[in-house]
Amino acid sequence: MSTPTQKSVILVSGGLDSATTLALAKSQGYACYALSFDYGQRHRVELQAARQIAESLGVIEHKFIHLNLDNIGGSALTDSQIQVPVSGLSKQQIPVTYVPARNSVFLTLALAWAEVLSAYHLFIGVNAVDYSGYPDCRPEFIAAFEKMANLATKAGVEGHPFKVHTPLIHLTKAQIIQEGIRLGVDYSLTISCYQPTPEAYACGVCDACRLRGDGFRALGVADPTRYKC
Amino acid sequence: MSTPTQKSVILVSGGLDSATTLALAKSQGYACYALSFDYGQRHRVELQAARQIAESLGVIEHKFIHLNLDNIGGSALTDSQIQVPVSGLSKQQIPVTYVPARNSVFLTLALAWAEVLSAYHLFIGVNAVDYSGYPDCRPEFIAAFEKMANLATKAGVEGHPFKVHTPLIHLTKAQIIQEGIRLGVDYSLTISCYQPTPEAYACGVCDACRLRGDGFRALGVADPTRYKC
Repeated sequence: MSTPTQKSVILVSGGLDSATTLALAKSQGYACYALSFDYGQRHRVELQAARQIAESLGVIEHKFIHLNLDNIGGSALTDSQIQVPVSGLSKQQIPVTYVPARNSVFLTLALAWAEVLSAYHLFIGVNAVDYSGYPDCRPEFIAAFEKMANLATKAGVEGHPFKVHTPLIHLTKAQIIQEGIRLGVDYSLTISCYQPTPEAYACGVCDACRLRGDGFRALGVADPTRYKC
Repeated sequence: MSTPTQKSVILVSGGLDSATTLALAKSQGYACYALSFDYGQRHRVELQAARQIAESLGVIEHKFIHLNLDNIGGSALTDSQIQVPVSGLSKQQIPVTYVPARNSVFLTLALAWAEVLSAYHLFIGVNAVDYSGYPDCRPEFIAAFEKMANLATKAGVEGHPFKVHTPLIHLTKAQIIQEGIRLGVDYSLTISCYQPTPEAYACGVCDACRLRGDGFRALGVADPTRYKC
């Protein structure tokens, strides 16, 4: 539990995991500042979801950073020439939906804002159990990031170390949803799909849709996502 | 020395240090990709300098990333409400020109592009001798970043570790200039000033101008920068 005056910056994508992470940070008494990225993702409708989630959970401020990662490409999520896979995950390979260095980029920008806010707690909804095989969702990455952050910043050097909180990292998708339901997260506001329609209907077959659907099914709870078929 | 096929991504700001770093990477045989940032800096005219430098040194590609760091603020370089100091550096304090987490942000974006290019060498012109007291210019920061980068990325995980090169880190400003002259860098193209005029005339009194001027004076070489007074 934090004291009510402790500030935190939470990465909010518009998906299920980050919504739950925000709810958890709030339940622990942090003053919450939400950060979202318009990075050229094909599923940009998630930003509208992010806005509604942050509002519904009463954040103090919600900032959007614009960043043309589509100029870099290299991922099915930022390059329209690469198709989003729909045939299921293989644990052997890092999938083409991996966005090069995305969590590092997002966390360093969260760090930048956190330093300006004097917020020494960063929250990110990464998950190392029911995950997509992304290297930047693992505990060892988070530990290395935290160490780097405290050498990189004025705050870190002057005795205000940053802590990166990953409350979901060892939970299954079903456990995450259970936690969110307990905290009153409105999952109908969230969108997980990598290739939703412009009206925010989910495809139901991409990796993100599969992981989400499996989580709700395992828990025996109806998924309020609107699927296009 | 690298083999001619080894690719590198070099952060090019438009200043003296990064121009020298690019020249050094080229002289070592790397295939050079330049990366610059339009991050809402008040000295945005440096981007025109960056373009000319990269062109003069024959890079393979020069990419510009747009990033609204002025939306975050917290620095005299990104917040027009904070004045650029002109009364000289104090080694006791990190100055207000420090941009929160800037080098971490820039390096993670360089990492993202490098991964797409299969370029495992990043170059950054940080300097720990004649520097401005920024925490993210120190060797311990660079080492921590490199470790983080190799846990964050698909390439790092799959056996292609990234190396962050900091060829200037232990040089004085005079030694950097000497090295650049040896390599044929045209310093008249570079701009170091934190608050240049729109026509790219340097103020001559900010920390960056002072460090640059001292370097040229120590070497007994004329500084080709155009000063406004």
